[in-house]
Amino acid sequence: MKRTFDISPWNVATKAWDPQDKRLQESMTSLANENLGMRGFFEEGYSGDHMQGVYLGGVWFPDKTRVGWWKNGYPKYFGKMINAVNFMKLIIKVNGEQLDLNKQTPKDFNLDLDLKSGVLKRSFKVEIGGSELQFTFERFVSVVQKELVGQRVTVKNLSDSNVNVEITSMIDADVYNEDSNHDEQFWDVLSKKADGTHAEVMSKTKPNDFGVPQFTVGMKTTTVTDLKHIEDGTSDKTAYNVFAGEIKPNSEINFEKRTVVATSRDFDTENEIEQRLDELAAKLDAESFDALLKPHEEEWHNRWTKSDVVINGDEEAQQGIRFNLFQLFSTYYGQDYRLNIGPKGFTGEKYGGATYWDTEAYCLPVYLGVANPEIARNLLMYRYKQLDGAYVNAKEQGLDGALFPMVTFNGIECHNEWEITFEEIHRNGDIAYAIYLYTNYTGDKSYVLHEGAKVLTEISRFWADRVHYSQRQNKYMLHGVTGPDEYDNNVNNDWYTNLLCKWTLNYTLEILDEVDAETAKKLGVSEDEKRRWKGIADNMYLPYDPQKDIFPENDGFLDKDLTPVSEIPSDQLPLNQNWSWDKILRSPYVKQGDVIQGLWDFIDDFTKEEKKRNFDFYEQFTVHESSLSASVYSIIAADIGYEDKAVELYERSARLDLDNYNNDTDDGLHITSMTGSWLDIVQGFAGMRVRNGELHYAPFLPKRWDSYKFRQTFRGRILEVTVDKTGTKIELISGDPITIDLDGKKLNLK
Amino acid sequence: MKRTFDISPWNVATKAWDPQDKRLQESMTSLANENLGMRGFFEEGYSGDHMQGVYLGGVWFPDKTRVGWWKNGYPKYFGKMINAVNFMKLIIKVNGEQLDLNKQTPKDFNLDLDLKSGVLKRSFKVEIGGSELQFTFERFVSVVQKELVGQRVTVKNLSDSNVNVEITSMIDADVYNEDSNHDEQFWDVLSKKADGTHAEVMSKTKPNDFGVPQFTVGMKTTTVTDLKHIEDGTSDKTAYNVFAGEIKPNSEINFEKRTVVATSRDFDTENEIEQRLDELAAKLDAESFDALLKPHEEEWHNRWTKSDVVINGDEEAQQGIRFNLFQLFSTYYGQDYRLNIGPKGFTGEKYGGATYWDTEAYCLPVYLGVANPEIARNLLMYRYKQLDGAYVNAKEQGLDGALFPMVTFNGIECHNEWEITFEEIHRNGDIAYAIYLYTNYTGDKSYVLHEGAKVLTEISRFWADRVHYSQRQNKYMLHGVTGPDEYDNNVNNDWYTNLLCKWTLNYTLEILDEVDAETAKKLGVSEDEKRRWKGIADNMYLPYDPQKDIFPENDGFLDKDLTPVSEIPSDQLPLNQNWSWDKILRSPYVKQGDVIQGLWDFIDDFTKEEKKRNFDFYEQFTVHESSLSASVYSIIAADIGYEDKAVELYERSARLDLDNYNNDTDDGLHITSMTGSWLDIVQGFAGMRVRNGELHYAPFLPKRWDSYKFRQTFRGRILEVTVDKTGTKIELISGDPITIDLDGKKLNLK
Repeated sequence: MKRTFDISPWNVATKAWDPQDKRLQESMTSLANENLGMRGFFEEGYSGDHMQGVYLGGVWFPDKTRVGWWKNGYPKYFGKMINAVNFMKLIIKVNGEQLDLNKQTPKDFNLDLDLKSGVLKRSFKVEIGGSELQFTFERFVSVVQKELVGQRVTVKNLSDSNVNVEITSMIDADVYNEDSNHDEQFWDVLSKKADGTHAEVMSKTKPNDFGVPQFTVGMKTTTVTDLKHIEDGTSDKTAYNVFAGEIKPNSEINFEKRTVVATSRDFDTENEIEQRLDELAAKLDAESFDALLKPHEEEWHNRWTKSDVVINGDEEAQQGIRFNLFQLFSTYYGQDYRLNIGPKGFTGEKYGGATYWDTEAYCLPVYLGVANPEIARNLLMYRYKQLDGAYVNAKEQGLDGALFPMVTFNGIECHNEWEITFEEIHRNGDIAYAIYLYTNYTGDKSYVLHEGAKVLTEISRFWADRVHYSQRQNKYMLHGVTGPDEYDNNVNNDWYTNLLCKWTLNYTLEILDEVDAETAKKLGVSEDEKRRWKGIADNMYLPYDPQKDIFPENDGFLDKDLTPVSEIPSDQLPLNQNWSWDKILRSPYVKQGDVIQGLWDFIDDFTKEEKKRNFDFYEQFTVHESSLSASVYSIIAADIGYEDKAVELYERSARLDLDNYNNDTDDGLHITSMTGSWLDIVQGFAGMRVRNGELHYAPFLPKRWDSYKFRQTFRGRILEVTVDKTGTKIELISGDPITIDLDGKKLNLK
Repeated sequence: MKRTFDISPWNVATKAWDPQDKRLQESMTSLANENLGMRGFFEEGYSGDHMQGVYLGGVWFPDKTRVGWWKNGYPKYFGKMINAVNFMKLIIKVNGEQLDLNKQTPKDFNLDLDLKSGVLKRSFKVEIGGSELQFTFERFVSVVQKELVGQRVTVKNLSDSNVNVEITSMIDADVYNEDSNHDEQFWDVLSKKADGTHAEVMSKTKPNDFGVPQFTVGMKTTTVTDLKHIEDGTSDKTAYNVFAGEIKPNSEINFEKRTVVATSRDFDTENEIEQRLDELAAKLDAESFDALLKPHEEEWHNRWTKSDVVINGDEEAQQGIRFNLFQLFSTYYGQDYRLNIGPKGFTGEKYGGATYWDTEAYCLPVYLGVANPEIARNLLMYRYKQLDGAYVNAKEQGLDGALFPMVTFNGIECHNEWEITFEEIHRNGDIAYAIYLYTNYTGDKSYVLHEGAKVLTEISRFWADRVHYSQRQNKYMLHGVTGPDEYDNNVNNDWYTNLLCKWTLNYTLEILDEVDAETAKKLGVSEDEKRRWKGIADNMYLPYDPQKDIFPENDGFLDKDLTPVSEIPSDQLPLNQNWSWDKILRSPYVKQGDVIQGLWDFIDDFTKEEKKRNFDFYEQFTVHESSLSASVYSIIAADIGYEDKAVELYERSARLDLDNYNNDTDDGLHITSMTGSWLDIVQGFAGMRVRNGELHYAPFLPKRWDSYKFRQTFRGRILEVTVDKTGTKIELISGDPITIDLDGKKLNLK
């Protein structure tokens, strides 16, 4: 654990200047608006170790893989959300000396991310060019104008003589991905120009061997400043405008840079992109930084109105949940169904910015509760629109139906470890299950009876071909799979995967009974096919151990050396940093819930005793070395009445990045894991369930807390649930009257 | 199957000029002498598709891996026997036009590898420079002077006017490996010179990040020719001498090039290498090509005297066994215990020229029977000398003792797929078993009681740490292994691996009882440790299925969909070219024997009925997609009386490369698989076994054959076994009298 920012309810701020934690600071101060985003790197440049990162949603490159492609069915490339052309760049010189905090040491350093309004501010004093100056940097990534990023620099002269300041506003295409497979740059510059207060660069991703369309990206900057325009220029990879002027003692100057970005994702030709840039720039040129910022701040306030969580008595927990929701909403707010939620969002290169099963398993249930249903529906549409890719993936494995990818941008699998790509197929079940989740929560059947029925049918076709019949056991089985617990690979009969397979087949059959004739005809599922699915679902093998009366995670699990994790010397933890992969794979240690994940999905289908026995058994072996782990355990712990355990597990996930628990936040934030703290409070502590269309709660208050309060969207309403030492209060903030269930009693809310 | 060379008892020859099969021809006409070797590429260059390859035994490069290194315990590099500086190169011009068979089409083409004497000859007529000429190329890689390669070119003018011929003899360091991970060249040139009839290049492998010593290699060529010396030269990467002259109609000229190679493997400094080159060149300068060739041919004759196999009535089989022995002896003849037998020897890049378990499992039993025991003993010494690396490998996995590598040059693991590197640990058992094999065959205990005891002890320490105790089954187990059948990965309790583990512990305990006090003290095995090993060996879990009365290959194997391979449509075979890796892993199809491999190792420990039941069960699922597979099945088939099956399986392996069965011989020859045909004839058809120091035979004659005859070395003797339609004749060719067992009867041979 390493805490580098102060505790505060609405801010992530620090006064510490610590170059050792530069990458960590950059991750923590990332900003985004679903369409584009960036790490909190310094716009003026920094010559010490850091990680520059500007990313554009859905703009990626298929980086040819170096491994595995010689085996049939292996993906040919690893998709990467590539580091975009850097439009943030400023070069600042004071009396000829360039500002670079790796060279000048700042005083009164202040770095402050305001979660309420989505603004990042940085200020410091510094001796430079023989004088002392104060710099203040502000930036926002507009959540109301998706193409817009605003920057403002204020420079104040603290010395007693005039200083000369020169600021270059630049667009720089000379960027690299740290994770590129072949050390190459991904961008070709098509054109660049600079003229007065504007600079513009049009760039295009390099050609690739895989038929993936190249992206064209246009960027245009406008500068508004008290300084005088003195020069324009371009080089091979840059376009820039230079401004300069004198600042008198105790005076300050203002430098505002706004950038608009348009891409071939939205426009067919370079001309159209350029027109759009010109149109946007013209509109923005007339507005001040403050005027552009205002609607952005208002939209953030709206978001918080729908979904704020207030915790009294535990400021750390308060900050944790708000930071997590802020970063989650920055990454995705459902405005574009072609986009999704990368595990690191716009905060780093790791996981390539692509879509994982995290979206359906962890994010969708949160968006259902904190935003309008369209947002969650767009996540479902994302998969529907990628069905063609999922057919390709299944076919690559020689199988029928649709196999949704482990990692993707366009539906085509682009992860490249066989034990994941080929085997971690529970994802297909999670994607089916998300359709149920949405339908159950919203009551809206429009998706499941049309697009959803198609997705379910094609997933069921995959399952029906992927199972095999074991004559010895007279059961259908799934061999060669990897469950969510990736510390066991290539196992036979992963309980969770088998359960999802069985469930998907049954749910699909149920939905097929409800679809209209036209849809049924399009789906073309014959009675024979249905009988086969029914036969598989009825005879699916699910591991069960009568001695321990638990569900073994997979065949052979109970043959392992079942030494609890508590007996491992603490200096050997985390296992993934201390043990060989060989030892980890053979061990009983669980990276993240596998059986427990299944108990969560079907939480009402198991008795308390079943859940207790399995929780008790698996908890002793679980190391939570996935950031997605502890929160799910917390929900089950809460469900079975282990309140202290639930809170302990909550704390492990709620401040994962704020406290850098896994010692890897320098790479970027764990965006999809950030859902965990909300789920723990709402599903765990407050016991929220939707049963037959009715909201149920069974809350408890964590001992250290005085109270907690959250807002929740539900079928056109906003509810506010307050839990304090006197009990639970549930209010209807907006929408039609509704009956809910609190601790088994019906309440009518008006 | 594709047969491009003619059937002939002592030659691999063709008159077909087929550029489509250029790479295949190059593989088939490879030459080597254990110390160095090369593919049969054209020395004069060839601008069409081909694969140039000159390799130096034990000269390799650690090529940084692109995969897996982020997991603990992963190898950092993949070792490669790199393409050496090309000392074979000639540039031949006729009336100014350069000879290049991709540009001029040859007539009367003749390519002939003489197995009896180890000489490759190529001749053809060609229209070039406006005239018709006949070219004859000869080359040999001396098996008596390990540093020497001889080349001779004869050019005859078939036209009726004079032609001008210019030949450049070159050493060229501008070479690439097709399989380099980073597309880089591996050689730096230190110095080069050319002077009259000599050229010389000193080169050094590039620096690496892994502390692997760099290799310095010196090459010196001498040219002896009727042409006139006209020029010398060097460029960045080359050194060369140019010769030219007129050839009159119907006349011919002679051009002889000899190269000597010395490396830092044998000499400490560049100076010493250069001295050695000068000394060798001086000696060779005085000799003609024919004089240098003579002792080389004699040595090949000696080798055949010890080990020839004669088959009457089946010329294809005759050619197959001789080609296999020729290539095997070329790759390794035990002259340098620091060298070993790469699966493709000196014939291609694939498998990186490194050492695999093939050596112990397939090659050692052959060398025991065809050569002096020192040769097999050197293979054992190779592993002993690499114990330090094996400790490192075990430690990387967090385990005690020694883990010999899957792939290596220096003892350190350099394979990089986790399911192989970490898991295919049966290799450690095979290396232990080879010690037993040597000791049992030769009766020489000097190795096993000293170096061997050390190797066995450290392997046993590894096994004792790698097993775990399953409380549920009250047995010791090995989870997370891959057996020889690589079509099933990361399994639990591979029967073969568990059997070898148990056997190694017992054998080590047996040997520890025999070692002298001083050795015992050095080994330091306490009574406690011995008790632990005994406990594991006595309680090792070995999969057994009472219903089928067979040994399941691993846990879960019998739960698979057990459809025989005969029901797979033939257009889906071979599986590895038609099925996804996912489908292959889940299937019951066996790449190469796993249980069958165990039956072979311990062939006398199982009843005929046990062997039959297991053979019958596994044969129906075995696809023999490893070149090492069919020959072992053939031996077991012969053992259980399935004679026709044994012959059918023999035919599948004996001409694997000659008939390009696996359609991959263009990459190089399957050197280590070439042992299979000898094993099938000697252990299979002739039923040779060594029981309690006594040779046993129980021969049968394949129906299509008139007779077969092989020579075998045994404890200082050479025996000749002849099997024909009248019965079996066994003769003692040299050595002391001996009693052997033929079909259960004792024979005294004098």
